Amino acid sequence: MTKTQPGNYFEDFAVGQTLHHATPRTLNAGDIALYGALYGSRFAVQSSDPFAALVGYPGAPVDDLLVFHTVFGKTVPDISLNAVANLGYAECRFLAPVYPGDTLTAISEVIGVRENSNGKTGVVYVRSAGYRQDGSQVLEYVRWVMVRKRDAGAPAPEPVVPELAATVAVGDLGHAVPRIGTAAWSDQLSGSPHRWADYAAGERIDHVDGMTVEEAEHQIATRLYQNTAKVHFNQFTEGKGRFGRRLIYGGHVISLARALSFNGLGNAFHVAAINGGRHVAPLFAGETVFAWSEVLETAALPGRDDIGALRLRTVATKDCPCDSFPYKVIDGSYEDSVILDLDYWVVLPR
Amino acid sequence: MTKTQPGNYFEDFAVGQTLHHATPRTLNAGDIALYGALYGSRFAVQSSDPFAALVGYPGAPVDDLLVFHTVFGKTVPDISLNAVANLGYAECRFLAPVYPGDTLTAISEVIGVRENSNGKTGVVYVRSAGYRQDGSQVLEYVRWVMVRKRDAGAPAPEPVVPELAATVAVGDLGHAVPRIGTAAWSDQLSGSPHRWADYAAGERIDHVDGMTVEEAEHQIATRLYQNTAKVHFNQFTEGKGRFGRRLIYGGHVISLARALSFNGLGNAFHVAAINGGRHVAPLFAGETVFAWSEVLETAALPGRDDIGALRLRTVATKDCPCDSFPYKVIDGSYEDSVILDLDYWVVLPR
Amino acid sequence: MTKTQPGNYFEDFAVGQTLHHATPRTLNAGDIALYGALYGSRFAVQSSDPFAALVGYPGAPVDDLLVFHTVFGKTVPDISLNAVANLGYAECRFLAPVYPGDTLTAISEVIGVRENSNGKTGVVYVRSAGYRQDGSQVLEYVRWVMVRKRDAGAPAPEPVVPELAATVAVGDLGHAVPRIGTAAWSDQLSGSPHRWADYAAGERIDHVDGMTVEEAEHQIATRLYQNTAKVHFNQFTEGKGRFGRRLIYGGHVISLARALSFNGLGNAFHVAAINGGRHVAPLFAGETVFAWSEVLETAALPGRDDIGALRLRTVATKDCPCDSFPYKVIDGSYEDSVILDLDYWVVLPR
Repeated sequence: MTKTQPGNYFEDFAVGQTLHHATPRTLNAGDIALYGALYGSRFAVQSSDPFAALVGYPGAPVDDLLVFHTVFGKTVPDISLNAVANLGYAECRFLAPVYPGDTLTAISEVIGVRENSNGKTGVVYVRSAGYRQDGSQVLEYVRWVMVRKRDAGAPAPEPVVPELAATVAVGDLGHAVPRIGTAAWSDQLSGSPHRWADYAAGERIDHVDGMTVEEAEHQIATRLYQNTAKVHFNQFTEGKGRFGRRLIYGGHVISLARALSFNGLGNAFHVAAINGGRHVAPLFAGETVFAWSEVLETAALPGRDDIGALRLRTVATKDCPCDSFPYKVIDGSYEDSVILDLDYWVVLPR
Repeated sequence: MTKTQPGNYFEDFAVGQTLHHATPRTLNAGDIALYGALYGSRFAVQSSDPFAALVGYPGAPVDDLLVFHTVFGKTVPDISLNAVANLGYAECRFLAPVYPGDTLTAISEVIGVRENSNGKTGVVYVRSAGYRQDGSQVLEYVRWVMVRKRDAGAPAPEPVVPELAATVAVGDLGHAVPRIGTAAWSDQLSGSPHRWADYAAGERIDHVDGMTVEEAEHQIATRLYQNTAKVHFNQFTEGKGRFGRRLIYGGHVISLARALSFNGLGNAFHVAAINGGRHVAPLFAGETVFAWSEVLETAALPGRDDIGALRLRTVATKDCPCDSFPYKVIDGSYEDSVILDLDYWVVLPR
Repeated sequence: MTKTQPGNYFEDFAVGQTLHHATPRTLNAGDIALYGALYGSRFAVQSSDPFAALVGYPGAPVDDLLVFHTVFGKTVPDISLNAVANLGYAECRFLAPVYPGDTLTAISEVIGVRENSNGKTGVVYVRSAGYRQDGSQVLEYVRWVMVRKRDAGAPAPEPVVPELAATVAVGDLGHAVPRIGTAAWSDQLSGSPHRWADYAAGERIDHVDGMTVEEAEHQIATRLYQNTAKVHFNQFTEGKGRFGRRLIYGGHVISLARALSFNGLGNAFHVAAINGGRHVAPLFAGETVFAWSEVLETAALPGRDDIGALRLRTVATKDCPCDSFPYKVIDGSYEDSVILDLDYWVVLPR
């Protein structure tokens, strides 16, 4: 029998099943530096130990999205090695800060399965959790993926489709943020004069800058996350496939959009939750990513007078500047340039 | 009103003005490793903690040019976001060693402004300084850039052009270097038998090797420095521009030339000062950088019998080996292959 | 006289000669992170400090091949700067674990020379050793390279060809591995249920996945190792040469094959020895590397009931999936797709 891991197929998943994912991963100063250099992020709390210490952290925490991608990467061999498509995210919450030297592990629970009418694929819903070496949980999110059946003749399971919250509740935000010294927070050093109260629902921000992606960059990033999805690395096979190109990991686009959003959201130092996200179209090397955001909602946080939350929609495009806020056309479908539609909560000092 | 940072235009600058630049940056082991892998530098003091300790440092210091690029990067959003060209550097001095874990911040003072006769642009002179978390200064340099006016109709300011030293004075060199144990310094380990006294003014050294630059490499480097200048990252826009290509950050060329210079200057472990530099022509991905150096001057340092300084001109070329020392043609203009003409001081053990 | 290092030519080598190689190199968290992101390795012992600690290491050791490449890189300026070809490796043993913060130096002894009949080149055999800052040895290997003569008229030396072991003896394996707590070893976390006893001689494993290599990736890797061999970096010169392309460092292929081998050999956490290796054909950027392995031998280790060894042949190919185990054709020559034929020992928990 082969010792090669085939990954799971649709019929291998059952509601209630728990998957303990392999390879614990210590995130160190090198991982953080590389993450920074791949995206150019400049949020002061993650960039500077003294800044972080001054406002209330023990030291600069690891970027929230590096935590997300690391946990996500661990789930790939078990969940999405035979996936056709990554369909969506929901109920993603960042629960505790992660610091250099912390080690992450991941566990997923299957919370839904539904075979597609074609009998060849099905949708699997999993709730994945990331843990630190001390057992404390740092991340939780739901994602659903379309997975191939090994055997088209296998019987369809009883369909279970979980009910998912449209947005993460305000009371669930900010638990990963220590009490922030808002007076110690220097807007000069953080690079933005705009605090939480300066933003209003309906406000739209063009993040202006564009970032062209190279094959080496997204491959290095995706390996940094120990994400083994084949489509990102293998031009020999992908060259014969639907797009003729390697697909860029969707999380790479999220991190680029987040880094670009610094221009206009420089004090939005923490991603607190992801309500939902859709990779509207694939990104390929050589294309240039732009982004804009709309403030969907502003929220004070219960018991916190130091920080507040903004619910944002960040839209990323390719090869299309965002000064006219490209999004959807009249029939509700996305404009051709749109590649990411992300609904999430960020936290700013008050 | 938009929250996006527009950057400063020529009329936003006034002599005497102080600019506190954003995002303090902790330089850690990861940043140093990445810097090393981007250029392949091999100077022993920066490469090895025990070597550094043996000769008198507490541990391996951060490469001088990584310090320079980091401070430079911080100044970009305020100084050169709307720049047409980076015109020159002067009076650049490295004042104290920087170690892993140190955090850099940057402040600039406007020391000159002069509107151009076309009424559309002007030259801004700034003296920029880099500081460590304890407030001690590690770097100082002057640069001047040509910046667009926001409004061509804005009145021209009184022109102020600072007087700048042609070279950094010998007495200003070496303050970033602890007392070096020259007997403990192993030429075998450092990779060069040639110490300060072995070099003579007029000597020319072909650094022989060539290094081809890829888009991913210079983008990763420039983001490592949190340098946000648009021309380095955005192929969508640059593709429609004057060159049709992304421009490579000039500092990337300086670091490549410095790394290449190891072959012939292996004991020149410290860049003490930059007297002046000119980016003669742009470098693009796929081109190969070569370099050669001429010793312009040798200088003993007052009160130091452990180290001495060499004033070098290092010339970098593209797609042109330097065995014939390409520089200027008969009319004083540069040969077509020349991309960098850098006049600077390095320090070697005696 | 030039201060540029010309490297050694064939007539500069003599049996018994010792070469102390330059630039000691501290391997830190950043080097390790970058190595990980360049290959995507997922062996748990190197990936996680707590996993390593639980099974018996003080913390996660540095990847064996990063140690090998670092020591190898140091030898290049003295041994192979004027090499025509890297002909082979033998008797390579990993003798002690290396941890973040350790500094490596390298020394080689010339153990053989044999001029080629053409009178223009000769083969040089060296035994190279890597040491830690405390003087303890961490690595030893023999390699032989074909080196140009400076002067074709120089007399041929007495030929000396060392006798080399076909394989590293079983008693020489595992000295770099502390006693492993096999009960503490979680197969769930390591990502493979297969321990030493589950493998049998003759077993063949297709590692399935393919990895396309970009110019930026292999250049960054090769500079990470401070390997200065010209053919990897200089498109200007290589573009005019035999292949018209930059050659990828052979060690990059070894590391890719090792990372791919995780799929099927997830518990093979340590490379204990390299018996021999041949770079059958060059790899170029844009090509996709695949790999498969055959278990040549299984060996219990004297005095160790915690670990056992597998002797593997790992074959890497380019642009050719390995489900049919491509290797040699009927006449004994390699199939066109094969680029690496590596015979080595790995260690797994029992």
